[in-house]
Amino acid sequence: MQVFSVMFLPDNKKTHIREDENVFQAALKSGITLNNACGGKGVCKQCKILIKKGRIKVSAAGSFNEDDQNQDYVLACKAYPESALVVEIPEASKLKAPQINLLSENIVCDNQKQWVPLYQKVHLQLPEPNLNDPEDDLGRLLRCMRKETGIVHLYPDPDVLCALPKILRDSGWEVDVFLSAFREQPAIEISAVEPANHTKKYYGLAVDIGTTTVVAHLVNLENRRTVGVKGTFNRQAVFGSDVITRIIYAGEYRDGLDKLQKAVIDTINNLIEELAGDEKINPTAIKVVACAGNTAMIHLFLGLDPVNIRLEPHVPAANDIPAMRAERTGLKVHQKAWVHCIPGIAGYVGGDITAGVLAAGITLAEELTLFVDIGTNGEMVLGNKEWLVSCACSAGPAFEGSGLKYGMPAVRGAIEHLEIAPGGSQVNYVTVEDAPAAGICGSGLVESIAWLYRAGIIERNGKFKSGCSTSRIRDSESGKEFVLAWSEETGRLTDITISETEVKNLLRSKAAVYAGIRTMLEMVGLPIEAIKRVIIAGGFGRHISIRDAVYIGLLPDIPLGKYLYVGNSSITGAKMTLLSISAGKNIEDIIKKMTYLELSAGGNFMEEFISALFIPHTDLSLFPSHHNGQEINQ
Amino acid sequence: MQVFSVMFLPDNKKTHIREDENVFQAALKSGITLNNACGGKGVCKQCKILIKKGRIKVSAAGSFNEDDQNQDYVLACKAYPESALVVEIPEASKLKAPQINLLSENIVCDNQKQWVPLYQKVHLQLPEPNLNDPEDDLGRLLRCMRKETGIVHLYPDPDVLCALPKILRDSGWEVDVFLSAFREQPAIEISAVEPANHTKKYYGLAVDIGTTTVVAHLVNLENRRTVGVKGTFNRQAVFGSDVITRIIYAGEYRDGLDKLQKAVIDTINNLIEELAGDEKINPTAIKVVACAGNTAMIHLFLGLDPVNIRLEPHVPAANDIPAMRAERTGLKVHQKAWVHCIPGIAGYVGGDITAGVLAAGITLAEELTLFVDIGTNGEMVLGNKEWLVSCACSAGPAFEGSGLKYGMPAVRGAIEHLEIAPGGSQVNYVTVEDAPAAGICGSGLVESIAWLYRAGIIERNGKFKSGCSTSRIRDSESGKEFVLAWSEETGRLTDITISETEVKNLLRSKAAVYAGIRTMLEMVGLPIEAIKRVIIAGGFGRHISIRDAVYIGLLPDIPLGKYLYVGNSSITGAKMTLLSISAGKNIEDIIKKMTYLELSAGGNFMEEFISALFIPHTDLSLFPSHHNGQEINQ
Repeated sequence: MQVFSVMFLPDNKKTHIREDENVFQAALKSGITLNNACGGKGVCKQCKILIKKGRIKVSAAGSFNEDDQNQDYVLACKAYPESALVVEIPEASKLKAPQINLLSENIVCDNQKQWVPLYQKVHLQLPEPNLNDPEDDLGRLLRCMRKETGIVHLYPDPDVLCALPKILRDSGWEVDVFLSAFREQPAIEISAVEPANHTKKYYGLAVDIGTTTVVAHLVNLENRRTVGVKGTFNRQAVFGSDVITRIIYAGEYRDGLDKLQKAVIDTINNLIEELAGDEKINPTAIKVVACAGNTAMIHLFLGLDPVNIRLEPHVPAANDIPAMRAERTGLKVHQKAWVHCIPGIAGYVGGDITAGVLAAGITLAEELTLFVDIGTNGEMVLGNKEWLVSCACSAGPAFEGSGLKYGMPAVRGAIEHLEIAPGGSQVNYVTVEDAPAAGICGSGLVESIAWLYRAGIIERNGKFKSGCSTSRIRDSESGKEFVLAWSEETGRLTDITISETEVKNLLRSKAAVYAGIRTMLEMVGLPIEAIKRVIIAGGFGRHISIRDAVYIGLLPDIPLGKYLYVGNSSITGAKMTLLSISAGKNIEDIIKKMTYLELSAGGNFMEEFISALFIPHTDLSLFPSHHNGQEINQ
Repeated sequence: MQVFSVMFLPDNKKTHIREDENVFQAALKSGITLNNACGGKGVCKQCKILIKKGRIKVSAAGSFNEDDQNQDYVLACKAYPESALVVEIPEASKLKAPQINLLSENIVCDNQKQWVPLYQKVHLQLPEPNLNDPEDDLGRLLRCMRKETGIVHLYPDPDVLCALPKILRDSGWEVDVFLSAFREQPAIEISAVEPANHTKKYYGLAVDIGTTTVVAHLVNLENRRTVGVKGTFNRQAVFGSDVITRIIYAGEYRDGLDKLQKAVIDTINNLIEELAGDEKINPTAIKVVACAGNTAMIHLFLGLDPVNIRLEPHVPAANDIPAMRAERTGLKVHQKAWVHCIPGIAGYVGGDITAGVLAAGITLAEELTLFVDIGTNGEMVLGNKEWLVSCACSAGPAFEGSGLKYGMPAVRGAIEHLEIAPGGSQVNYVTVEDAPAAGICGSGLVESIAWLYRAGIIERNGKFKSGCSTSRIRDSESGKEFVLAWSEETGRLTDITISETEVKNLLRSKAAVYAGIRTMLEMVGLPIEAIKRVIIAGGFGRHISIRDAVYIGLLPDIPLGKYLYVGNSSITGAKMTLLSISAGKNIEDIIKKMTYLELSAGGNFMEEFISALFIPHTDLSLFPSHHNGQEINQ
């Protein structure tokens, strides 16, 4: 196997490339993520590069047509080296950070002075031993710790034991003792004993491991304040943009699981490096990590086999995973730091949802709350302090902007809001950063459906009405389509459209979500009106018009004032578990109370789904505001 | 630093030697232990070797006199290489296995069918998941384990988690689950999950780590039977024969602790190899280890700093040490095996004593029991099911045969029993293996004192009486001495003698033990007669005449029928903890009930000690049988 050097311009990043590696992979190794919507199949043609020096071998799919203005370019994902290379990467080929969902909203978790973090410091002045009190060093430490804190079950890490005699004596018996607590066991570990030092800081890291993006918060555990927030792409994207593709990759290649694990660990380590750099600390000052993510992401993160999550009946290796040492995971924090993963509920209802339920305080309230996180899957939880039900439905990737011809994430140029004039002659839209329209993101899609219906262009079942006389409606190779933006307004060479097929796909997505909600309610024998609060979590919810989401029948028709958007509740739930031992108790409570409803296991889901394929629903009594012509209750 | 090869004959063992290493150390590295009574000072001259090839540098102390018949020999402990060497080791220079105290007596612990071992196998047939029961693999396993065993606190080792999905499916959901229990925590670890296999054996190892010898028992955990028993020398002997010398070595040399740890680990690994070889198993079939040893030995075994044990107030790093993984200790068993150490009580009352108290069942009985283990130190425990008191006194190495001119362990040629005719004209003795007398061991020394007194040769204070007309009493450079064996009877060139000074030293040793017992009794306000049972543990007790030990005032004057010799109760206690989870509970109980009495912390010990320096004691009322002329109650 030959290995060549490769230099990437204009970043001047150098790495090595094996003859069986493509330039896309080499770029990733050097920390540059290229566009990869097609997962390296050479289809999306968005990872184009220029070879400035050296020879490459390119498969047919990796070249552009001779008449294409791109003819000097090749696709990185199809380019294999035959010599040392110098490669220029156009800015447009780099995957752009979308508006990463870095924070939660409407939830307070910083600076709660009464909280006891998972990793805490206890200052101790030990009595010096004498012949009347010759207790062993460890026994003495435990005795004083129990007296100081009341903690009964305490045990030392073996390294602490080895260093203890010297530290106790060198410090004049005045020490800081660092304790690690666990959600899953009552015993507390003495993780470190150091000479007393009132200025030394110690940190915790909360991580939200998303399929697309990874977000990390650095927390000063002494004052319980967030000192840094960073987000980036999950480098696993190179193996496929969605969970299923990655699970397949993990199962089909001998070292697939290792590669996927390494990719996400690298992603997080990069965030750690940046956060530590900004805070001017050594990453080893991070003494505890809490992670939340969907079940597959947590499996890949820990190197657990995810393959059965994909196959019916969708069984994870584990939902509730005991804490592991950082050294086992490969995270570059203190090697003895414990890495806690918030437990998931099922193959498609992960720890990110548990974290969200925790952050939203659902089990603390009397009132019935519906928690909704819509991405590729819709994950829903219904409940209160007495009980919880959860389910997952396949919403398809439509709302995340992929799978549609002009779908895109909510990044620069994405149409995020719009209005269509009656009859469809005119479209007013707003794009992210007011850039020329480049495509349409999830919130724009919800509004498209609502406005296509309001404007009288589509039927309740999504079918394009005949007889609309606007040039925006036209026939294409793949059926009827509606032009949202003309090419001259856009950053593209083509018009931005939405087709009848795409509308119907979106209706299937919204029907799945609504049917899931209804099936949960039926299970507990409650009507829609019983819901007193709806929590919308995740990135999709940020820009969405709740009004339009209700209008099309995606979300239940209850007063808009009862909706609350909480943003990234996964990272907040993770951070809460870092900051508060009692959050762990709350999680245990959530897990204990939770009933997982498998929608595909018979029951009413299919029936509900079919009923929900219309705008807003076949049963209009479920959408009284719609039905009244008043549109939506205020 | 130059390194040379060295070949040892006649064993044909080859190793390497650095120019700063002596041949003694090189021999040890290749597994040959030479005599080392003087700890490598060149004084005992018992490690003589012949250099067959190569050049060495020998310090003065390492050579023999020219007129000495040994003139061709050099001492291995003083011989440093200057080239590659071929060395012949005479059989007489090899340290002989003494009658290693391999077993306990009068205690039953094998084949107790009702016992649940620390490592146990549970066979499970799991229900296959389906859409109505899609629980995760780990959750399913835990659910079934709880149902099968009733164990609530269960958690998996991370490696188990990684392998679980495949094993469950490959095995058709029929598995053997291996559980590790801990004394110090209620949670049980799932250490391994394997496809069900009714024939695969799994083992535990019990180890008694003595200062001089190390004993290991291999136990088949499935049928709870001991399948192998081995003992050998502790290779730490090369760094000094007693605990104190080794503690000093550990503290004074930068890698002293590491070397001592390596030496004892090598010792145990050698036993493991032999035991596994005899049983025809791979050592990785050993899944759990339980060790008992004195506090310093356990520190050195685990690499804990022992230096403060030596210094007043004699504080160990830890008495009660949480279980560690074998991989951390260096033991060559299954690397994930948990290594449990039986907790000690104080710097000089170690886990070997706790193990003995466990094995002797002291806390299970109503009757007041005295437990005595005499070695270099005397360790004593007094108590019953209600309470326990322990103490340690420095008995000196006399009873172990060292520190005396002709003292030796109870190996071939040692005088172990004797009688002296009135006036001292005649001595009848018995030696180990009936070999020519080579010296005198502990049991012989106790009888020497008794018979020197009975024969009217010494006063009650150990002073030689004047006016005895036998050639066996004579003056030497170091004062008066008594000839036990004439040179013509012995394997030595000289007479075997015992001097007045040595007699007085032995009286000090016996006084310390007796004073310790009395001080414990005083602490709890009980008389000697309250003792209903005396347990004698350890190697020293095996051949000792209890009658003579009582006669000289070493042991209390209670009916001989109440004495019980239990042999190596340390190994038996260790084995019990392997074989029975409830033994661990008993140990917790022992530790909780135990009061450690520090004899040097004031109190009556000094007074008691001085009173006990006579034969049998200043207060003859404490020894009624002696006083009555009837000698000893039957």
